[in-house]
Amino acid sequence: MGEGILTDLLTEILIPAAAVVGIVFALVQWLLVSRVKVSPEPSSSGGSKNDYTDYLIEEEEGLNDHNVVLKCADIQTAISEGATSFLFTEYQYVGIFMLAFAVLIFLFLGSVEGFSTKSQPCTFSKDKYCKSALANAIFSTVSFLLGAITSLVSGFLGMKIATYANARTTLEARKGVGRAFIVAFRSGAVIGFLLAANGLLVLYIAINLFKLYYGDDWEGLFEAITGYGLGGSSMALFGRVGGGIYTKAADVGADLVGKVERNIPEDDPRNPAVIADNVGDNVGDIAGMGSDLFGSYAESSCAALVVASISSFGINHDFTAMCYPLLISSMGIIACLITTLFATEFEIKEVKQIEPKLKWQLIYSTIFMTIGIAIVSWLALPYEFTIFNFGTQKQVASWQLFLCVAIGLWAGLVIGFVTEYYTSNAYSPVQDVADSCRTGAATNVIFGLALGYKSVIIPIFAIAVSIFVSFSFAAMYGIAVAALGMLSTIATGLAIDAYGPISDNAGGIAEMAGMSHRIRERTDALDSAGNTTAAIGKGFAIGSAALVSLALFGAFVSRAAIATVDVLTPKVFIGLIVGAMLPYWFSAMTMKSVGSAALKMVEEVRRQFNTIPGLMEGTAKPDYAACVKISTDASIREMIPPGALVMLTPLIVGTLFGVETLSGILAGSLVSGVQIAISASNTGGAWDNAKKYIEAGASEHARTLGPKGSEPHKAAVIGDTIGDPLKDTSGPSLNILIKLMAVESLVFAPFFATHGGLLFKIF
Amino acid sequence: MGEGILTDLLTEILIPAAAVVGIVFALVQWLLVSRVKVSPEPSSSGGSKNDYTDYLIEEEEGLNDHNVVLKCADIQTAISEGATSFLFTEYQYVGIFMLAFAVLIFLFLGSVEGFSTKSQPCTFSKDKYCKSALANAIFSTVSFLLGAITSLVSGFLGMKIATYANARTTLEARKGVGRAFIVAFRSGAVIGFLLAANGLLVLYIAINLFKLYYGDDWEGLFEAITGYGLGGSSMALFGRVGGGIYTKAADVGADLVGKVERNIPEDDPRNPAVIADNVGDNVGDIAGMGSDLFGSYAESSCAALVVASISSFGINHDFTAMCYPLLISSMGIIACLITTLFATEFEIKEVKQIEPKLKWQLIYSTIFMTIGIAIVSWLALPYEFTIFNFGTQKQVASWQLFLCVAIGLWAGLVIGFVTEYYTSNAYSPVQDVADSCRTGAATNVIFGLALGYKSVIIPIFAIAVSIFVSFSFAAMYGIAVAALGMLSTIATGLAIDAYGPISDNAGGIAEMAGMSHRIRERTDALDSAGNTTAAIGKGFAIGSAALVSLALFGAFVSRAAIATVDVLTPKVFIGLIVGAMLPYWFSAMTMKSVGSAALKMVEEVRRQFNTIPGLMEGTAKPDYAACVKISTDASIREMIPPGALVMLTPLIVGTLFGVETLSGILAGSLVSGVQIAISASNTGGAWDNAKKYIEAGASEHARTLGPKGSEPHKAAVIGDTIGDPLKDTSGPSLNILIKLMAVESLVFAPFFATHGGLLFKIF
Repeated sequence: MGEGILTDLLTEILIPAAAVVGIVFALVQWLLVSRVKVSPEPSSSGGSKNDYTDYLIEEEEGLNDHNVVLKCADIQTAISEGATSFLFTEYQYVGIFMLAFAVLIFLFLGSVEGFSTKSQPCTFSKDKYCKSALANAIFSTVSFLLGAITSLVSGFLGMKIATYANARTTLEARKGVGRAFIVAFRSGAVIGFLLAANGLLVLYIAINLFKLYYGDDWEGLFEAITGYGLGGSSMALFGRVGGGIYTKAADVGADLVGKVERNIPEDDPRNPAVIADNVGDNVGDIAGMGSDLFGSYAESSCAALVVASISSFGINHDFTAMCYPLLISSMGIIACLITTLFATEFEIKEVKQIEPKLKWQLIYSTIFMTIGIAIVSWLALPYEFTIFNFGTQKQVASWQLFLCVAIGLWAGLVIGFVTEYYTSNAYSPVQDVADSCRTGAATNVIFGLALGYKSVIIPIFAIAVSIFVSFSFAAMYGIAVAALGMLSTIATGLAIDAYGPISDNAGGIAEMAGMSHRIRERTDALDSAGNTTAAIGKGFAIGSAALVSLALFGAFVSRAAIATVDVLTPKVFIGLIVGAMLPYWFSAMTMKSVGSAALKMVEEVRRQFNTIPGLMEGTAKPDYAACVKISTDASIREMIPPGALVMLTPLIVGTLFGVETLSGILAGSLVSGVQIAISASNTGGAWDNAKKYIEAGASEHARTLGPKGSEPHKAAVIGDTIGDPLKDTSGPSLNILIKLMAVESLVFAPFFATHGGLLFKIF
Repeated sequence: MGEGILTDLLTEILIPAAAVVGIVFALVQWLLVSRVKVSPEPSSSGGSKNDYTDYLIEEEEGLNDHNVVLKCADIQTAISEGATSFLFTEYQYVGIFMLAFAVLIFLFLGSVEGFSTKSQPCTFSKDKYCKSALANAIFSTVSFLLGAITSLVSGFLGMKIATYANARTTLEARKGVGRAFIVAFRSGAVIGFLLAANGLLVLYIAINLFKLYYGDDWEGLFEAITGYGLGGSSMALFGRVGGGIYTKAADVGADLVGKVERNIPEDDPRNPAVIADNVGDNVGDIAGMGSDLFGSYAESSCAALVVASISSFGINHDFTAMCYPLLISSMGIIACLITTLFATEFEIKEVKQIEPKLKWQLIYSTIFMTIGIAIVSWLALPYEFTIFNFGTQKQVASWQLFLCVAIGLWAGLVIGFVTEYYTSNAYSPVQDVADSCRTGAATNVIFGLALGYKSVIIPIFAIAVSIFVSFSFAAMYGIAVAALGMLSTIATGLAIDAYGPISDNAGGIAEMAGMSHRIRERTDALDSAGNTTAAIGKGFAIGSAALVSLALFGAFVSRAAIATVDVLTPKVFIGLIVGAMLPYWFSAMTMKSVGSAALKMVEEVRRQFNTIPGLMEGTAKPDYAACVKISTDASIREMIPPGALVMLTPLIVGTLFGVETLSGILAGSLVSGVQIAISASNTGGAWDNAKKYIEAGASEHARTLGPKGSEPHKAAVIGDTIGDPLKDTSGPSLNILIKLMAVESLVFAPFFATHGGLLFKIF
């Protein structure tokens, strides 16, 4: 067997070093973004590093540059303050929930051995003694809170950076689309690297601190660390759902009155819901998504670590090999760093270069990372080792593990490409949907739904192949590292994902500040590419969530000591069918919430248009705060029921029906949720870009459908509005549903294994 | 153990007797319907049995009765001829496919033992000798063809009766809503009883004929009989998909130009697609649905019989007990017969009594049948017996089997009620959807989708409870008889289901014949109730399909000798996730087909309006045949790919990947397909009735949304159009998908068990 080439000491140094490099890189990018001044001094071109000599559009058109910059700064402040205030309100409510849940974790896990402080036989190595169940309860609770806080900080920082960047992107758009792109992308990179590095660093520090107590009891250590994943995902759930309801209530409400009834453009400052809409982009798409991907990352690391601890790595105390998942993530930061330079150091010249540029980011990062994985696998792993596989140990070679990680990584790329194909208006699927608007909104919706359903096929095959290969090579550990492989380029993924809402906001600010039409065209082009990248980001999130959940599910089954999860036992089958139903229940709640909140928003916006004199003429200012309050109240109130559904289902099922039914629930919600999540997110993305396709009128075909305000365009707007809750509320929340239920089951597994299945015990 | 009270001879007599009673009852009902004359003699009121003395509406309004009747007769002939000609075309194509598939069955099953005619050891009783694999191949092929033909005849007869009844319903509507209701319902009953009795009789005769060869080899006999279910379901698949595309292409096309662009009423004779639309109701909703429920019935009987043959019934040659499934169906015919009398012998007086009347039909039939099941269980079953349960024999008492059937029956009622609640505009869910039309089509769609998702919850719990209870009591046999229980009231279910399209057609004929507005109001009221009953019928079809598929799945697993279907093996899990994807793939195909065909229809309708002078003024006749041709061509061409997907998937997966992966596919498509099917069908039904709610304006709230042509009404029409392919094409086809793949796997199980999994054998 032997050990890998890398020494333990070097591992101890390399992981935090990579995290620090990532953080430093993020700060450098931030510094570069901050050079764009949102104050009226004419320093905006003087400070840029490549001495741009073009005139600004305002200068060409003889407009007053001064006022525009001031207005942008004002709007940026309003958005930033709105987002900050919402997140604080959200965190208060979620904070209470988290504390209550932390108590629950402690009580449930502590009760496993009646709060005894005595050591107990280990679960997997029966001949050894592990730390007490009470210790597990305490450390799980601590790591749960740690995960929640890290996730919270990740989301909050992301929002702060995004609101810092949006106006700067608008201002740079005056100099050219290439400049604006670089600012938006750099800001995305700040978020991506900060989150990836932060997640790695906190996890690494936590492991080292816990080790002080646990010593060589790897099994206990990593069982406790799993709470970190649970905390991260719980926070992400509320972030996604709350933020999603917030943003879409505002968006749908603003569109329905503004675009459809009053015939004013999107993001028009006369629309009272416009600030709420822009705030929403930051709290939903940025903060929610940041928490979400952080959660996936934390969970896949935890799943891999738990399995590693009961494999030969743990048994032989091979620290470097056990840290393989963290080393992969460290290498990911470096690979993404190189990739980012390709985006920021070569400026694009034309609008049509934006999408290829972003696509090549995915390709570069995948190629670099493949080399990176090979290096890590060669250095960190022994040539041969054994992996725990449901009670037995399976022989694995290091090249096989390399393949597991690599196949996850490349499956992510395939999912990214398929998503791009189905949601970008450069290809025929979205163009077909746009074309169907000729016959009205109904055909648009029918074609859009069909597109979403169809877009599921290849990603599912990609996931299935990854699962088969990685499971065959290295059982559940293979699946966990495949998930990590897919997430290893998270910094780049987050960068291109965050780029979308930043561009969206930049467009909104341009419109609100009354900037030239040509600037709005540039920001629209950035935004359209952003819709595609947002869909790609969601594709990654869903694909990785599927793998992560399966890995966690496997760990749960091992921990709960279930021999088989046989579909043909009634306990499992009813779990399977009810589990497959849960994503529908959850979606029904979130869709309805968005719908109801949007109705309220519509009423308020209509009221303001009807009662505030001079609003339509632009002489009076709308009451933005009233709309912000509607979104805030609705999202806080409405995020509780779906959140409770997800958080309580595993607890109730595990306690009352036991681990077999819970296994069925996990498998059912996994296989059904993945499909709805992918189709919802792609359908919404396609509708949004079909609308943009008609608006941009870039081809002969598109011009026959337009211009803005034509009947096909109106039909496209309806599709876009329907897609909003699908792609930004229910769709992306579903991947949290599946992985959160899995990680929660794993954390509570010791309790379920001893006290679960009450109902069957009684009868 | 002992035997039941009923002697074998009596069983031999009772089953065909019940079938004959059902057929006679259907003929009597048909006779009563035929008394309504669609010829201009003034005999229409003279011939009716209760000497109706009210004036006809035409007489009151002084219209020419003569012409109206002639027009109705004309339109009826056109619809009937259109439907007949389409079905003949469809059957030609499907016929070729069926023959090819029959050859495939023979070759695959014959090759199991290399076409040897030698007897072989039985699969389950290894010490005995059973008939050769070649015999199984021959008899399976024969019963496959028999099932296909019976299904074809069932669908065709249903269509004939429905087109016979539609104009008669219209004419009776002149005398009052109660009279029209009775004609429509009686005609539905003709279809219901004919299909139920026919299905039972053919199956019974086939068993007795096969027995001449098989003798006491029950295992072989019922294995061969399974082909009957496969044939029935294959035919149903093409019927549902082809008919569904036909009807919805015409419906969507007619609505988009007629209602939205030209602002003419639904079913206006000036609309060129109007005949195609009405033809579609008969080939899609009637013929397709008839084949579908017949298929479910045949399959659940087959599944129960297969399991019975290898249980103590078969081992002890207890013919009466083995015929328990057939006796349940026989009793069902009697129970439904009594129920029907309650609908036809007490006339309703008001529009608002229609829905309760139909609802009570469900309740009465369930109550009578519960008693019926108790009687059959008491008479036909030994007090205790054993049931085959994956390799072991499980002890079951007759009262436990009673509970299995009864819980299926009552779960059906629960599903029916929930469906009614979510799709009838008497309750708040549909009213909320209608209310959301205030803010336009987008909110209508969002609320409608949310409603569909939500409507899944209780039916899934009902199915889960049925599965758990029936499985716990009597393993897979319990599930099969639970499915039979749900389907035991099939005659009533089909009657109220067929009532819908008949009323829909009646309304169309009233409009086309230019009859009084008050008649149209009556037919609209019948039709609105029909939307709800159609949704209930689909609920039954889906619920029973879920149970049937599970029973078939269990039989397949037994036959293929798989020990466990463990989710946590990669072979099974990839099957599970890919299987869960198949309903999406299938829906994408069917939705897109409807969309594309509707686009063509729209172009043709627009062309006719633009090029035929005098069409809008009503002085020139449109070219109905051109639209019929578009629907026909589209449905024939487009039904092939989804049909092939369903029929080939089990063959390809079984042959290349083997029985474990195929098991995963079956479980995945089952748990995922049920959800989409229920939500699609209820969403569509809700949208249709939200529209009808606004149009009828029966409440204060509804009047604030109307009248026809208002903005909320337009939004409601868009929702209705989107719902069309969901509720009539993809939704109801999905239940065929899940059960067809299961029954096909069962039929091919001997082949897969010996030659399957090629790909894994090679690597």
